[in-house]
Amino acid sequence: MAEAVVTMDGWSVVHDTRTFDWASWKLTSEEERNAAVKEFKELMKKWDTVEEAKLGSQSLYKVVGNKADLMFIFLRPTMEELEEIKREINKSKLGDYLIPDYSYVSIVEMTMHNPMNEGKDRKLSPQVEARLYPILPKWEHACFYPMGRRRWEEANWFTIDKEERTRLLYDHGMTGRKYAGKVKEIITGSIGLDNWEWGVTLFAHDPLQFKKIVYEMRFDEVTTKYAEFGDFVVGNYLPAEDVDAYFAL
Amino acid sequence: MAEAVVTMDGWSVVHDTRTFDWASWKLTSEEERNAAVKEFKELMKKWDTVEEAKLGSQSLYKVVGNKADLMFIFLRPTMEELEEIKREINKSKLGDYLIPDYSYVSIVEMTMHNPMNEGKDRKLSPQVEARLYPILPKWEHACFYPMGRRRWEEANWFTIDKEERTRLLYDHGMTGRKYAGKVKEIITGSIGLDNWEWGVTLFAHDPLQFKKIVYEMRFDEVTTKYAEFGDFVVGNYLPAEDVDAYFAL
Amino acid sequence: MAEAVVTMDGWSVVHDTRTFDWASWKLTSEEERNAAVKEFKELMKKWDTVEEAKLGSQSLYKVVGNKADLMFIFLRPTMEELEEIKREINKSKLGDYLIPDYSYVSIVEMTMHNPMNEGKDRKLSPQVEARLYPILPKWEHACFYPMGRRRWEEANWFTIDKEERTRLLYDHGMTGRKYAGKVKEIITGSIGLDNWEWGVTLFAHDPLQFKKIVYEMRFDEVTTKYAEFGDFVVGNYLPAEDVDAYFAL
Amino acid sequence: MAEAVVTMDGWSVVHDTRTFDWASWKLTSEEERNAAVKEFKELMKKWDTVEEAKLGSQSLYKVVGNKADLMFIFLRPTMEELEEIKREINKSKLGDYLIPDYSYVSIVEMTMHNPMNEGKDRKLSPQVEARLYPILPKWEHACFYPMGRRRWEEANWFTIDKEERTRLLYDHGMTGRKYAGKVKEIITGSIGLDNWEWGVTLFAHDPLQFKKIVYEMRFDEVTTKYAEFGDFVVGNYLPAEDVDAYFAL
Amino acid sequence: MAEAVVTMDGWSVVHDTRTFDWASWKLTSEEERNAAVKEFKELMKKWDTVEEAKLGSQSLYKVVGNKADLMFIFLRPTMEELEEIKREINKSKLGDYLIPDYSYVSIVEMTMHNPMNEGKDRKLSPQVEARLYPILPKWEHACFYPMGRRRWEEANWFTIDKEERTRLLYDHGMTGRKYAGKVKEIITGSIGLDNWEWGVTLFAHDPLQFKKIVYEMRFDEVTTKYAEFGDFVVGNYLPAEDVDAYFAL
Repeated sequence: MAEAVVTMDGWSVVHDTRTFDWASWKLTSEEERNAAVKEFKELMKKWDTVEEAKLGSQSLYKVVGNKADLMFIFLRPTMEELEEIKREINKSKLGDYLIPDYSYVSIVEMTMHNPMNEGKDRKLSPQVEARLYPILPKWEHACFYPMGRRRWEEANWFTIDKEERTRLLYDHGMTGRKYAGKVKEIITGSIGLDNWEWGVTLFAHDPLQFKKIVYEMRFDEVTTKYAEFGDFVVGNYLPAEDVDAYFAL
Repeated sequence: MAEAVVTMDGWSVVHDTRTFDWASWKLTSEEERNAAVKEFKELMKKWDTVEEAKLGSQSLYKVVGNKADLMFIFLRPTMEELEEIKREINKSKLGDYLIPDYSYVSIVEMTMHNPMNEGKDRKLSPQVEARLYPILPKWEHACFYPMGRRRWEEANWFTIDKEERTRLLYDHGMTGRKYAGKVKEIITGSIGLDNWEWGVTLFAHDPLQFKKIVYEMRFDEVTTKYAEFGDFVVGNYLPAEDVDAYFAL
Repeated sequence: MAEAVVTMDGWSVVHDTRTFDWASWKLTSEEERNAAVKEFKELMKKWDTVEEAKLGSQSLYKVVGNKADLMFIFLRPTMEELEEIKREINKSKLGDYLIPDYSYVSIVEMTMHNPMNEGKDRKLSPQVEARLYPILPKWEHACFYPMGRRRWEEANWFTIDKEERTRLLYDHGMTGRKYAGKVKEIITGSIGLDNWEWGVTLFAHDPLQFKKIVYEMRFDEVTTKYAEFGDFVVGNYLPAEDVDAYFAL
Repeated sequence: MAEAVVTMDGWSVVHDTRTFDWASWKLTSEEERNAAVKEFKELMKKWDTVEEAKLGSQSLYKVVGNKADLMFIFLRPTMEELEEIKREINKSKLGDYLIPDYSYVSIVEMTMHNPMNEGKDRKLSPQVEARLYPILPKWEHACFYPMGRRRWEEANWFTIDKEERTRLLYDHGMTGRKYAGKVKEIITGSIGLDNWEWGVTLFAHDPLQFKKIVYEMRFDEVTTKYAEFGDFVVGNYLPAEDVDAYFAL
Repeated sequence: MAEAVVTMDGWSVVHDTRTFDWASWKLTSEEERNAAVKEFKELMKKWDTVEEAKLGSQSLYKVVGNKADLMFIFLRPTMEELEEIKREINKSKLGDYLIPDYSYVSIVEMTMHNPMNEGKDRKLSPQVEARLYPILPKWEHACFYPMGRRRWEEANWFTIDKEERTRLLYDHGMTGRKYAGKVKEIITGSIGLDNWEWGVTLFAHDPLQFKKIVYEMRFDEVTTKYAEFGDFVVGNYLPAEDVDAYFAL
C-alpha cells in the first residue's frame, strides 16, 4: 500500500458558471435592468472589500462558446460563505437571468510531493500562505478543468510509491516552470467534494498559452500514463468597469 | 464462486436533492411566501416528531455549488413512507419551487465482513440498533456519494474470497477510525434499488475532513483496486430556525 | 461460433415512467382535477377488463426517489396496443401532467437454456403459458432494471458454448429459487427493441428482498463475469382505490 | 494497413424523431387543429409524389415507449432536400407541436465485402439500383439503430484484412437470409456524417422478428467480436389515412 | 518521454450551433420578423467586412438533422472577439430565437509533424499564412467533428517517438491528398481550450465526400490505433442572399 499524500489546504473554492437569459432580459424595462446591474455591481464591490481584506478572492469571466455565458470563481475560508454567495446571487435581481449551470467545488491544495516544499519549514511562510490563500490574478483570460488520476491495473496512481509520484510531479512542474510569467496556476483538491479529484485553474494574458502549456504537459510522463480530464471552460476577464457594457442592450 | 456477503439491514433511505426556483419565488407575494414557509416548517416539525419517537430521522442541507440548492436525507422504516414524504413535499406550497433533481434510494446496511462484528452476538445490541436505525447527527456539513465495486477480470470484488474481502475492508476501516470524532459515516446498500451499489453519507464539523478522509482512503488497497465513484454532493446543515432566513428575499 | 439461443416469446411490454407536474396540477380547478382523475380511473377500469379477459396485464407504481413519480407496466399481445395506450394516456386530461420520462420496450421471453425446460414438451403447457402471458402480481413493490451480457475479449457471453451458458444460468436460477414466495420475477428480452438486452422486473411484499436477491446474485458466476446493469427503478403498488388519494391536494 | 473498403452510395437519409406536445395541442382550437392536420397531410401527399417519381422515399412511424412519439424516415438524392424537409415540417402549423428529438444522418451504402456482389458487374443493375435508391416498404413495423465496429487492440475491424472482413460479413449475411420475407433491411453509412458508423433500419410485419434477427445475429462472430450498438427505436407504421385519428382528441 | 510537438498557431475559432425556435418565431409579427432578419443581415455584412480585410472569417450552415438548425463558424485573431460576436448575436433581435446549443473552441494549428513542413523555412510564407489565417471556402457543405488521441497502455500517442508520429501523420496526409479539389480541411487545436484535443472542419461540394474521406482514413494506421471521435455535425452553406428565404414563413 502506497503512502498517502500529505496536503496543506487553504480556501474553499467554487467555480460557478451561468447562462444569461438574454431573451427575458430584453423583455425587462430599462429601469429594471439598470436597477439589476446596479445591485449586482454593489455585490461585486462588497466582494472586493473581502478581497482587499484578504478574507477571500473572486473573479468574473465571460465564457467563450456556448457552455455558459459567465463564470464566477469564488474563494472563501468556509463552505458556508460559498453557499451564501450563491444564494445572494440567486436572490439578486440579476440572478433571475443568471441561470445556474455547471459548477465545481474544491479546496486550494498544496501537496508535499514537490521536493521544493519537502525541505521547507512547513509553517506558513509568506509564499505558502500566498499559495493557500491566493488572490486571483486579474489577468485577461482564465481556463478551468477538473482532472483525475487513473486507477487502472497497469497504471494506478494510488499504488505507485511516493518517490515515483514525487519524481513524476517534479518533471511535470519543470514543464510548468517554462511558462513562468505567461501562465499562473492554482491547484485545488476535490476528492470527497466533487466528481473529479482536482481542479486546475489557469490564468494567462494570451489564451494561446493555455493551449501551449496543456499541450506540452500532455507529453509529460505523469499525464501520458495517469491523467484523465473533465470539461474545459475558457473565459475572458470581466472587470467591474465593463459590467455595464456587458449587459447593455 | 465466492461466498455471498451477509448483511443486516435497517431503515430505508432517500437522498433527495432539489433546485430552488428563485425566479418564480420572487414573483410570489410576500403573503404567499410566508404561508409556504410556514407550512414547510410545520412539515419539518412533523418529521421531527417522528425522529423524536425514533421512528425515522432526517436532515436538510444547503448544497454548495450548482448541482442543487437543497438536499434532504430521509430515513424511514418503509419505502412507502419515503414515497409519501416526497409527495407531501411536492404537494406543499413550497413544493412548487423545490424542483426535483438527483435522488438516491438505499437501505442502511451493516455487513458481516467486519471482524469486529463477526465475534459478536448478532442479536440487535444497542450499538447495532443505533447503526441500523441511526439518528442523523446534526453536524454542520454532510457529503453524499454513491459507489460500486469493480467486476473487472483482473479486479473482481465479487469473486475474491470472503477472507480477502474482510481483510481489505478491515484495513479500510482502520483508515476511517483515524477520523473518529471528526467524521461520522453511514453506509447504505442500494444493489437492486438504485444505480450504484452503495451510498456513503459523511458528516463533519469541518468539510475539509471530507477531503482528508476520502483522499486518504483512496490509497487504501480496496479503493485503489476495486472502487468506482458516482457524483459527490456537499451541503451545509440547515436547521429549522434558519429556514426563514434561507427563503427570505 | 456458439449456438444461438432459442427463445419462446410472449406479450409485448412497456415500462413507462412519468413525472407528475404538481405545480401545474395545483393551478387546475378542483372540478377539472376531479374530471381528470375520474377519466383516468375509467381508463384503469378499461385496462382491467383486458386483464380479466387475459388479453394483457398492467400495474401502476409510485416511484421512490426523483427518477419519476409513477411507473406503468403494460403487457399486451401487440406493439400496436402499447403505442395506443401511451397515446390514450397522453390524450387524456391527466396526461397533461404525466410528463413522459424513461421507458423500456421488450417482449416476455423464456429461453431454452434452463435444463428444467429442456426436457419438457415445448407445447404451451399451462405453466409455460402463465410465464409467457403473465398476469402481473399485485404485490406491494416492484423493481425494474435492464441488463446486458458482456462481449469482452476475456468474457464474451455470446461466444461461450451453450452448455456453459446453461450451467451458469442454472446456478443463477438456484439463487433465485431461494427467494420463492418472497420475490417474483419476469424476464423480458429487448435485443432489437431497446438499448439493453434484457429487462428484469421483480415483485416483492418487502422491498428489502430486492436488495437481498440482487446482492446475492451479484456473487453468481454469471453475474460476476458477464453482467452489466442499467438504471434501477423501485416503486410501490398504486391500486385503483388509492388513485384519488394519490392526486388529492 | 488493411485495404479500405469500396462502397457504392445511394440516397441521403435522415431518421428524424419527434415528441408530440399533446398538452399544447389540447389548448389549440379544433379549427386550428384541423387546419394543422390538413396542411400536414398535404405535405405528406407532396412527399408521396416524390416517392412515386422515384426521386426519394419516406415513411412515418408511431414510436413505442417514451423515446419519441413519431419517427420520420426520409431518403432524398441530396442533403439539401433533407434540410429543406426538416425546415418545411418545422415551419408548418403542426411543426409547433412536433418537438425535434434524436435524429440520424447517413447515406445508403452497399459495400463490396459481400462475395455475391464481388463477381457482379458493378454497373447499376436494377437490383443494385433498387438497393441504393430504395422505396421504403410500407410494412407494419420499423426498427432503427446505429452501430460501429470496434478499434480495440485485440479486436480492430479496420486492421483485419479484407478477406477476413468479407468472410465475417458473409456469415452474418447468411443469418440475415434466414429472415427473408420476414425482415427487410437497409444499411446506411454515417462515417463522417453522424456519431456512429452505420445505421441499420429494419422492417417487419411482426416486431418479434426484430428481436429474433438481432438476437440471432448477436451470436455471429462479427458481432460478438466487433460490434457496438447505439440506441434502438421501434415504431409502428402510420399511413396517411390514419393521420387524422392519430391527432384526434 | 516523447518529444512534445511544436505547433504554429493562427486564428481563434468557435463552432457555434443554434436551434431555431420556430414556434416562438411564428408568434412574432411579420414586421418584427422582418426587422430581426434585416438586423441579422447587417451583422453578417459587418462580419464580411472583417473577412474582406483578412481580419477574420466566418460561414453559416444549415444543419442536417435535429442536432441543431444552424452552425456558425467564426475565426478571429482573439478570444475576446469570439465572445463579443456571441454576445452580439444573443443581444440581436434574432438572437431570441437562436437558442445556443453545442459549441467548440479551438485555435487554428499547424504541426511540425508533417515532413513537407519540416524542410521549409518557418517564417510565414504566404502558404503558411493562408493556412494559419484561413478564409473559409464558401463551398456547399461543411462537416465538423472533434477528436482526440488515445493514451492507452498499448496505444499511447503521446509516448511514441516523434519520427513514428511523423510517419503515421504523413501516411494519413497521403490519404487526404487523394481528395484534393474535393475536400478542404482545417485542423484546429483545442487542448487546454475545449473537451477534445483537435477539431476537424471539412468542406466539400458533395457531402458524400465527407463519408468517403473519413471512411478511407478510418483504415489509416494512425486512426485504427490512436483516434477517438466526438459528435459529427453536417451542414449546408447558407449564403447571405438565402437568409430571407430561410426565415420566411
